[in-house]
Amino acid sequence: MVHILDEATVLTRSGDVFSGRTHPYYWNFTGPFGGFTGGALMRAVLEREHIGDPVAMTVNYCSPLVEGDFEIAIKSPRTNKSSQHFSLELSQGDAGIAATATAVTAIRRESWDHAPKQSPDGGQPEDFKDVVFPKAAMAWLSRYRFRLADGELNFGRTPRAENASARSVMWMADNPARPVDFISLMAMSDAFLARIAQVRGAMVKLGTVSMTTYFHVSAEELAANGDAFVLGMADATVFHRGFHDQISEIWSRAGVLLATSHQIVYYRD
Amino acid sequence: MVHILDEATVLTRSGDVFSGRTHPYYWNFTGPFGGFTGGALMRAVLEREHIGDPVAMTVNYCSPLVEGDFEIAIKSPRTNKSSQHFSLELSQGDAGIAATATAVTAIRRESWDHAPKQSPDGGQPEDFKDVVFPKAAMAWLSRYRFRLADGELNFGRTPRAENASARSVMWMADNPARPVDFISLMAMSDAFLARIAQVRGAMVKLGTVSMTTYFHVSAEELAANGDAFVLGMADATVFHRGFHDQISEIWSRAGVLLATSHQIVYYRD
Repeated sequence: MVHILDEATVLTRSGDVFSGRTHPYYWNFTGPFGGFTGGALMRAVLEREHIGDPVAMTVNYCSPLVEGDFEIAIKSPRTNKSSQHFSLELSQGDAGIAATATAVTAIRRESWDHAPKQSPDGGQPEDFKDVVFPKAAMAWLSRYRFRLADGELNFGRTPRAENASARSVMWMADNPARPVDFISLMAMSDAFLARIAQVRGAMVKLGTVSMTTYFHVSAEELAANGDAFVLGMADATVFHRGFHDQISEIWSRAGVLLATSHQIVYYRD
Repeated sequence: MVHILDEATVLTRSGDVFSGRTHPYYWNFTGPFGGFTGGALMRAVLEREHIGDPVAMTVNYCSPLVEGDFEIAIKSPRTNKSSQHFSLELSQGDAGIAATATAVTAIRRESWDHAPKQSPDGGQPEDFKDVVFPKAAMAWLSRYRFRLADGELNFGRTPRAENASARSVMWMADNPARPVDFISLMAMSDAFLARIAQVRGAMVKLGTVSMTTYFHVSAEELAANGDAFVLGMADATVFHRGFHDQISEIWSRAGVLLATSHQIVYYRD
């Protein structure tokens, strides 16, 4: 059985070009969910020759992908002894370039380690029920299970009178369950709903402009989580003149920091 | 009088290639200070035709620059109605590509605004004295004035027994004074010393691998700070198997959030 995330992001390689196709199950408002695009770009890196495991990936969302085929051109501007750099462009024929990305992979050696921060207080996933989405909600939401320990998911159209906190804490898992890897982690980085929806209590016109995810474990360490829920935290610092930031953390069920992610979001409100 | 930052990052344009040269005054351990490289890349974006003001820039440090000339090749994979995307490569002839970057510029329209976070408590810059660097310190440090409200700068070689907090708060300014702009803000994003030096109380072998800065104000709003000190905060979440993250904020003297920045740092300890 191929998991839907792997089926949707499947790529065919021809030299340094990987071909894929958008998938209706990961559809957002006007194109695929940004995490789908990030996941496909990560797959291109992993399916190309590379050194070590992903350490960083930045995706710039230039324009919504249109339904249909896409090509990811990948090149490696630099190969070092224990790390490697990548530049990627996702294009769709006449529709042009829809996304650019850069990535760094590296061999993670043993070192002096230090974890000054703890995972947020989210209890256990069993303490909460799955969020149920409205029928008209974007398709990609059903590709995940979300269990909110703090915060809300809002799909209304009318902003509330008072601003809510931008912070939320939630248990997250692929639906159906799938062992977490760098592809799913890259996709989950964008699975926190844009902070403005939480603060305003309503959906507004918005889109991720650029997202960067840092990975803090090796593939082996990541595999230890299996398909258990991971704990996500998302927050924002400022909403100003049409853009807001978003910071997030993804922790393993056992409390190990798997990834931190940052994005800048365009909004019209 | 041309400020040293502008003199050091001066570029000569030939089509979509900008030529520059490393400068000894911004030298770090084994190449220019990463903020110099970021500043030069930002200058290339600003001196090329572009829409609006910088919103995001990611710089991947592929390899230390060698002393001498460099070329920045810039292209724009996408131009939208009110935003534009850029991809850049900084190369040095036979030495190859030393850095890659992506950037997004956009016109910032009036919108619903919200500032959920306040600037860190740093008193006033007049409350503190300039940090005095050891004579053997890296040249670029003298291009700044740092006034520490919280945290330390450490240049020793022997790690302390107990880990210190990764967080520091400091007033920062170009030295000599220079009105803050997107070039200096990009450079300052990398002017916080790597968090491992603060936590360990000593310098170890380290280098920024990738850095992303988000800008939260327009050029006009940024200009309001003039050449006053800005307030910087830097922190880290995890140090693990040779890499640690770093998050930072830069606030205007008046308490407006100018930029947030994130980086992943390689270390050997």
